[in-house]
Amino acid sequence: MKTLVIVAHPKYTESTTQQLFKESVADDENVVWHLITETIDPAKEQALLLQADRIIFQFPLYWYSAPAVLKNWQDKVLTTKFATGSLYSLAGKELGLVVSTGAAQKEFQAGASEQFTMSEILRPYEALANKTKMKYLAPLVVYQFPYLTKIEQQRLFMAYQQYVTNLQFNHFSGQEEWINQRLSQKIEAEQDDKKRLTLQQIQTVLQDNQETLADLTLTASMIKRNEDE
Amino acid sequence: MKTLVIVAHPKYTESTTQQLFKESVADDENVVWHLITETIDPAKEQALLLQADRIIFQFPLYWYSAPAVLKNWQDKVLTTKFATGSLYSLAGKELGLVVSTGAAQKEFQAGASEQFTMSEILRPYEALANKTKMKYLAPLVVYQFPYLTKIEQQRLFMAYQQYVTNLQFNHFSGQEEWINQRLSQKIEAEQDDKKRLTLQQIQTVLQDNQETLADLTLTASMIKRNEDE
Repeated sequence: MKTLVIVAHPKYTESTTQQLFKESVADDENVVWHLITETIDPAKEQALLLQADRIIFQFPLYWYSAPAVLKNWQDKVLTTKFATGSLYSLAGKELGLVVSTGAAQKEFQAGASEQFTMSEILRPYEALANKTKMKYLAPLVVYQFPYLTKIEQQRLFMAYQQYVTNLQFNHFSGQEEWINQRLSQKIEAEQDDKKRLTLQQIQTVLQDNQETLADLTLTASMIKRNEDE
Repeated sequence: MKTLVIVAHPKYTESTTQQLFKESVADDENVVWHLITETIDPAKEQALLLQADRIIFQFPLYWYSAPAVLKNWQDKVLTTKFATGSLYSLAGKELGLVVSTGAAQKEFQAGASEQFTMSEILRPYEALANKTKMKYLAPLVVYQFPYLTKIEQQRLFMAYQQYVTNLQFNHFSGQEEWINQRLSQKIEAEQDDKKRLTLQQIQTVLQDNQETLADLTLTASMIKRNEDE
């Protein structure tokens, strides 16, 4: 799976969130990291889009939408002819959003200071995905990054990596599968015998857990069936 | 009441909708018609905003929000310090939206081609009004302007005039009152005796209708009260 990350951030170099994201996918040859500016060549952008299976709009939330630099990109690149019209060049691709905001998660609800949920605020992007026949992915939203603990930052690092590179990032079994694959790759590449052994042990524990979990899931579904009868 | 109309339209000179709107309020000294471009002096824009009681964002819908030129304006003019912070410089003012779209009204609903209602799509502007303590007005949306008949265009002309200049544009009694005031102004200014008489007759009919309506409203509320008991 090829992913195009379209980064729209007027203060990109100052953003520690963006640095963390970039590090998270730096080694991945299937990820194109694409920082956009006001100067755009629509044909080149369209060519980049065509090569991707997953397209991600990544931006800080300014006045409840992307900074102007992304809107400018949308207006110029997503022409009627290219994106809808008769071509629907993006049909079947995935559209993901990675959004950062300085407000707390609990503020995004009726009665709180932001009044609306993030799903409501991001509706225009969902509508865009709908119109262009793309699959809209549940957004990855980062609330108040500066307040995250080291552990939370590490979790975000992993979550972001999955969001960008994992086909099944939103299912637990897909996440397990993805971690398993990554471990296998690391084990194969590892030169140091001792380190390889540690990685293999981790993988064994993970696989044992997966089996235990599969048993528990079966038991739970049987209990549920009895209750339903 | 002073109104500032912020017009954001990349193809302004070609837009017949914008021409109709401009004509509709051309004579009104309480309306500032402000066509924006990429070049912005935030301090000047803020000064314009401070003078207005009603602020209108007027734009064609591009990818379910305003063209980039307005987003750029928002990002640069509505600074935290000015719009929120401790100042809340826009608090108490009204925020109106005049939005034009090439899609039909019936498409803006679940299951139709645009999937979402216009209220949902415009949520980011409602959130902006909420955040800056402005009063969000029900938007004036123009669907498929080129398909409007002459009569429909005339109605839009009037509706727009009211949206921009009438304090109570969204209440029927407020609309009547506004028309009555406009008629009185016209009668006073009219030099031709015959034309003045015609205008006076129109005003008499209007006022008679208002009285009849008031009677009907009273009767209806009495019937309703009996039903409720």
